[in-house]
Amino acid sequence: MKLSEIGEFGLIKEIKKACGRKAEGILIGIGDDAAAVKAGGKTILLSSDMLVEGVHFDLRYTSYRELGHKILAVNLSDIFAMGGRPKFFLINIGIPERCGVNDIKNIYGGMKRLASKHSVAIIGGDTSASGRHLVLSGTIMGEADRVITRNGARQGNGIFIAGTLGDSAIGLEILKQVKGQRAKGREKTYLCKRHLMPEPEPLEKTKDVTAMIDVSDGLLIDLSHICDESGVGAVIYEEKIPFSEELKSVSSQTGRSPLGYALKGGEDFVLLFTSSAKQRKDAVRIGEITGRGRYIIDSKGKKKPFKAEGYEHFRK
Amino acid sequence: MKLSEIGEFGLIKEIKKACGRKAEGILIGIGDDAAAVKAGGKTILLSSDMLVEGVHFDLRYTSYRELGHKILAVNLSDIFAMGGRPKFFLINIGIPERCGVNDIKNIYGGMKRLASKHSVAIIGGDTSASGRHLVLSGTIMGEADRVITRNGARQGNGIFIAGTLGDSAIGLEILKQVKGQRAKGREKTYLCKRHLMPEPEPLEKTKDVTAMIDVSDGLLIDLSHICDESGVGAVIYEEKIPFSEELKSVSSQTGRSPLGYALKGGEDFVLLFTSSAKQRKDAVRIGEITGRGRYIIDSKGKKKPFKAEGYEHFRK
Repeated sequence: MKLSEIGEFGLIKEIKKACGRKAEGILIGIGDDAAAVKAGGKTILLSSDMLVEGVHFDLRYTSYRELGHKILAVNLSDIFAMGGRPKFFLINIGIPERCGVNDIKNIYGGMKRLASKHSVAIIGGDTSASGRHLVLSGTIMGEADRVITRNGARQGNGIFIAGTLGDSAIGLEILKQVKGQRAKGREKTYLCKRHLMPEPEPLEKTKDVTAMIDVSDGLLIDLSHICDESGVGAVIYEEKIPFSEELKSVSSQTGRSPLGYALKGGEDFVLLFTSSAKQRKDAVRIGEITGRGRYIIDSKGKKKPFKAEGYEHFRK
Repeated sequence: MKLSEIGEFGLIKEIKKACGRKAEGILIGIGDDAAAVKAGGKTILLSSDMLVEGVHFDLRYTSYRELGHKILAVNLSDIFAMGGRPKFFLINIGIPERCGVNDIKNIYGGMKRLASKHSVAIIGGDTSASGRHLVLSGTIMGEADRVITRNGARQGNGIFIAGTLGDSAIGLEILKQVKGQRAKGREKTYLCKRHLMPEPEPLEKTKDVTAMIDVSDGLLIDLSHICDESGVGAVIYEEKIPFSEELKSVSSQTGRSPLGYALKGGEDFVLLFTSSAKQRKDAVRIGEITGRGRYIIDSKGKKKPFKAEGYEHFRK
């Protein structure tokens, strides 16, 4: 069978099936943002994420420093999505011949800056030659008092977003257009930075949070993960989807709706969660969890079903 | 500066310098086989290792099942080298378009078989598209009651090897010669398997062990790491170096000495350690730790200094 037929999520299902049996000490195995295990009475979170040149990044418009930042950021985001505190980071780098010592130092520089912001220590990893492409693979260890999974959403819960969506997707478009040149103007620079150096942030208060995920593949896909895992439906309101002034302004110049970027754009690394609270100060309520069905309501009040559309590896 | 000038070990030194400061909870940071951190009163070991197509393996003579075995084996070996018990494994796979679902299942198959042998649970990871090369990056978490580092060797300690050396190096040579065909004969098949599917084993009793490392880059390099970190010298005896009957037999056919493979061949993944014990049942004593200098004594009793020669990434 071809990977393009079952896609990334089909493959994860197969892997889950193959590895699925619970072993001693495992609280959460394959399939959530991070795994959770017990060690000495504590709950340890572990997550691993990789960035491959030519797939996740293009060195024509990404600096080594930005790359170092991003490989840690995507891993941090997974720990935050589980309600955890990141602690330690390991980084494997596959290095093609054209990279010099300074390039690698710059990767570490970008990584270290973000690491100290979040009190994360870089404790190990592996460096190796690599044929053609630069490959970064990071693993993060964190701790959590209460682990928040994707499967706790209940009917009546509100659906919340803690940040703006779509910036990273339009940022990537701009970067591709300017082909290695700096994008001109404050707004475009901001959007490019949102793609190159995402800044995931933890949710401070999580008592009322019932399910959580980070938006990495796009709102519709990631909300669908929560619905799938929790066995619930959802209704969201187009008008409530939070996007930045910068996205609004730049997309109006290109004649495209900011909504497309916000619904299907990936790599925003902001938290999407469900909560028993009516409102929260730190996040925007974009809809409600229902018994079944997945719908989006447009500005005229028209209800349309939505599918899990966005970014998926291997799919054509 | 070019990587080929400072080599892998020079790069690790640079990285260690950049990340070196001790943070709370870190017992051992960058530079040993695994990192060690404290969590809830327990000592957690974390190590990460990657295999890159075209650098570490060639799919013309490596099956996906063997690859799955090996990515776990190299990580297991790091935990054993610290005197730890492996517990959990995360695996990131960067998958080029030509790989099918069954190939990935076979990687998991090989991994799972070895995992159950050592009671390790596969708890997570990331799958992603990859440009041209298959990339596997694994991270292992283990526990240890007493962590054994590279820096505890003391003058008068014996130097021990828990297995035979050089099999993997000659196995790789055979594989390259037969170019994707099966090697003929029991001996060659055995040696190829030692390269493709190394079987690291833990040391049962470690009370008298003062320093330990796994032989991954070759005996001379890995013993030099112990000497460097412990600030000691070493004398080893050519005649004591353990190698298999298979290595002896096959290398005699090619007219080369088995000793070259045993001293400089990498990827044997057997344990090299120093101990206060005179002899051990589970390992061969090959020499002694001294105050300074690094020497090898040949069969005629002639003493020659040795250098850290073997495999190093990036070096020309």
